[in-house]
Amino acid sequence: MTEYYFDQAIALQSLSTGHYCGSTHAAWQNMVGPFGGITAAVMLQAVMQHDDRLGNPVSITVNFCAGVAEGAFEIYAKPARTNRSTQHWQMELLQAGEIVITATAVTANRRNTFSSNESPVPSVVKAQTLSRAEPPKLPWTQRYDMRSINGHIPAVWDGSEGDTLTQMWVRDVQERAIDFVSLTAIADSFFPRVFLRRKTMVPIGTVSMTVYLHADAAELSALDSGFILGQARAQCFFNGFFDQHAQLWSESGALLASTQQVVYFKE
Amino acid sequence: MTEYYFDQAIALQSLSTGHYCGSTHAAWQNMVGPFGGITAAVMLQAVMQHDDRLGNPVSITVNFCAGVAEGAFEIYAKPARTNRSTQHWQMELLQAGEIVITATAVTANRRNTFSSNESPVPSVVKAQTLSRAEPPKLPWTQRYDMRSINGHIPAVWDGSEGDTLTQMWVRDVQERAIDFVSLTAIADSFFPRVFLRRKTMVPIGTVSMTVYLHADAAELSALDSGFILGQARAQCFFNGFFDQHAQLWSESGALLASTQQVVYFKE
Repeated sequence: MTEYYFDQAIALQSLSTGHYCGSTHAAWQNMVGPFGGITAAVMLQAVMQHDDRLGNPVSITVNFCAGVAEGAFEIYAKPARTNRSTQHWQMELLQAGEIVITATAVTANRRNTFSSNESPVPSVVKAQTLSRAEPPKLPWTQRYDMRSINGHIPAVWDGSEGDTLTQMWVRDVQERAIDFVSLTAIADSFFPRVFLRRKTMVPIGTVSMTVYLHADAAELSALDSGFILGQARAQCFFNGFFDQHAQLWSESGALLASTQQVVYFKE
Repeated sequence: MTEYYFDQAIALQSLSTGHYCGSTHAAWQNMVGPFGGITAAVMLQAVMQHDDRLGNPVSITVNFCAGVAEGAFEIYAKPARTNRSTQHWQMELLQAGEIVITATAVTANRRNTFSSNESPVPSVVKAQTLSRAEPPKLPWTQRYDMRSINGHIPAVWDGSEGDTLTQMWVRDVQERAIDFVSLTAIADSFFPRVFLRRKTMVPIGTVSMTVYLHADAAELSALDSGFILGQARAQCFFNGFFDQHAQLWSESGALLASTQQVVYFKE
């Protein structure tokens, strides 16, 4: 078996075309159930290892319909429509016959065109000058080497007002090479914005998350296991839900992904 | 029949629970096929008029798998999972038995909680001091009263470099009252960012669009047919696709929706 916890967690056994089984992994558990990023990753993995896949991921949306229970799950992935250069996917994760996760994705064969990063990398200190931030005592946070620049999880939970901005360097502790699937997981690695905003720990759960990927496989491969610069903010808290929008850049300043999610929170 | 072109275009006839038929509307045509916003709206409408709906929309993602042909379509909408206060939806639009649009949505019964607008409305001139911008000669643009503040569609297509920022006031020309469905359409009313960036008209098509709704029905209802302030930017153009992230505020400065999309473009 692979030495990488990440690859262990996204391992899917194919039962038939587009039908897989997998299992949650103790190393990726969050407070309740698995880290959402690893669930998003395994949904994308079901597309990546599908025989009929055309091209690489451009977009994925994952809806967290219910808590993923510890243990086995099934995933169904099917191409809803295949065009000349793009393909649309529908995915579902089931446990005990019930839908737990729904997702859609777009894959495409990209062509070389005009390209431009309109979201320049913020001016921040290099990862190598920072030490690893003390992560909360949860299994999944042990999987990442997070180096906080701004807005780490609060040290003091005093209910005071805070800013929702986080800037951090992040990489896999085991230094597994970055690919579309691991980048999708990293897109969910920011702590809940409500924790920063209110310095109060309240129950939360992402209900929907979208990742747009702005890189090709060769570009990601060249990054190897380098650090990713992540920046996240909330735009709105409103009656039980807040949003988060975030960017992920490479160390050389390429915008690799833009991502957003909407999160349930309890007051 | 309703006098509002919007209601005509989103009208769905129920064939059985969660199975509808509808038709494209000449008044909402774009360059090729219907305006994406009206398609997103009709996908949400299928949820809104479903007998089993719980609460109001929090999130919707619409994937444009292929061009919507002029004429009739079927929509299937089903609750994938119904929880105590949230519900997850899967929707599909078909023509001639083929999937043309896939979508997912989250609806919820919101509770009163801590709320905070973290994305303050930009300081701009009032809609009433501006006159209606000359829209391109397309049916759907005639449906909106757009008042440009910054970044209207280029007047001169000279291939020069431009900024991707648009700020505009927008409302339904017929002054139909705003609701979740019409707000979802407005989330797609920004002209393609590549037009502004490159001042070159190239073929484009949105492949996936997500709208997060940060308002309740009473709040939207109180807006009546007021102007919406829209602001949109691109974050990245990369090998055939670019993203757009945008916000929609009320005249009083409430962030009603945040939205993002990824768009195919041809060089």
